[in-house]
Amino acid sequence: MNVTSERHLDGGVVERTFTLGEVPGILWTPAAASAPTPLILLGHPPLGLPRMYPRLVDRARQAVADGFAAATIELPGSGDRPRWAAADQARADMRRAVEAGEPVSDEIIDALVLPLVDRAVPEWRAALDALLALPGICGPVGYSGGVISIGVRLAAVEPRIAAAALFAGSFVPRAVIEEARRVTVPLHVLLQWDDEGNDRQAALDLFDAFGSAEKCLHANMGGHTGVPQHAGDAAARFFTRHLK
Amino acid sequence: MNVTSERHLDGGVVERTFTLGEVPGILWTPAAASAPTPLILLGHPPLGLPRMYPRLVDRARQAVADGFAAATIELPGSGDRPRWAAADQARADMRRAVEAGEPVSDEIIDALVLPLVDRAVPEWRAALDALLALPGICGPVGYSGGVISIGVRLAAVEPRIAAAALFAGSFVPRAVIEEARRVTVPLHVLLQWDDEGNDRQAALDLFDAFGSAEKCLHANMGGHTGVPQHAGDAAARFFTRHLK
Repeated sequence: MNVTSERHLDGGVVERTFTLGEVPGILWTPAAASAPTPLILLGHPPLGLPRMYPRLVDRARQAVADGFAAATIELPGSGDRPRWAAADQARADMRRAVEAGEPVSDEIIDALVLPLVDRAVPEWRAALDALLALPGICGPVGYSGGVISIGVRLAAVEPRIAAAALFAGSFVPRAVIEEARRVTVPLHVLLQWDDEGNDRQAALDLFDAFGSAEKCLHANMGGHTGVPQHAGDAAARFFTRHLK
Repeated sequence: MNVTSERHLDGGVVERTFTLGEVPGILWTPAAASAPTPLILLGHPPLGLPRMYPRLVDRARQAVADGFAAATIELPGSGDRPRWAAADQARADMRRAVEAGEPVSDEIIDALVLPLVDRAVPEWRAALDALLALPGICGPVGYSGGVISIGVRLAAVEPRIAAAALFAGSFVPRAVIEEARRVTVPLHVLLQWDDEGNDRQAALDLFDAFGSAEKCLHANMGGHTGVPQHAGDAAARFFTRHLK
């Protein structure tokens, strides 16, 4: 892990950018902490870290205020990272279906999401190796938000993830719903009831599929970006209950 | 309203029992309050106030600790109040269907729930008249829990109800789902995902039907009586957001 910049933000937050191989990332830690802090990984949609930065830094400030470190990495094919042809094709197919008012087929969803999950999850696990090797950061680790299929796979395969807050806001391949049955950590699932980019019934089916004995679904009104403040507060309390 | 007893509970709570005509009830207020406090009406299942008392007083203590007064009244046909033959018949029909493993028909649900709602709602409104006439109690008023169809009707017809926390845990007549479209106050709906006495899809349909611009659904694992502590805390925060 190469730290490429470090600066102090208001509110006692230290922000470090880093690269891990070809993958850029950001780490936020409390400027003053008497003991190692548990870590929350901040997932995000595949729009690139530069575009997502304002929302990510807000979530990171909340995490640090709650006594956590927070970190994120760029997704494969997003931001300055190289695209790949099959993903571009799948995105174009999806856009064509949506614009034609047709249902997005399982084949398009698989082609769009599965290669992203297959590439991203090992990178998040490698980032976890590097982050937990730093002084001042410890487990247990939480995963929050972003592409829900990445969160599902990560929670299913990575034993260091102790709790996950997932945002039901992206298309989920059938295979990932099957993987959800293997997830056993406590889950907090956020659903925007009228999310224009999300199939409500598919989100409910996914919630039902999770194997976790402790899982809660918080559904709120409004579209994809209309998550109310109190819903973010509830997710923060979820991590405090399970990681502290 | 005739106050029939008054005692001080631990934690600065004054508990008064009262009767309003033939309807018994309980009022809990802060022992020391510098200004009138908003009121939360505590709904409950039709098992009788004596049997429900332990759970009601816990909810009342939470409400008073949060700066509210709390009150409840006995339901028609419950506790020491006279039964009526049609309700006994409907309960027997429901029990027979459940024990035979048959679906509970819309006709049975209507016969069981609608007369209860028709009788109970005017009584809650009369109680509200009497309670808001007391010194130290003011609006806005919240309604919490109990038979969800009573909460729906009350929120639809009673303009003094400013927010409602409803527990999706009882059979809902089709007519009440239609009434839900007229509800516009902020709602917090609690759903036990594996509630053995509740149809999950009917609960989701009811949530969808509410006309409120601000409504949230909190679904948790476990059966009807397995509501986790954090779900109760979230309902308390909902009332603090909307009634203070």
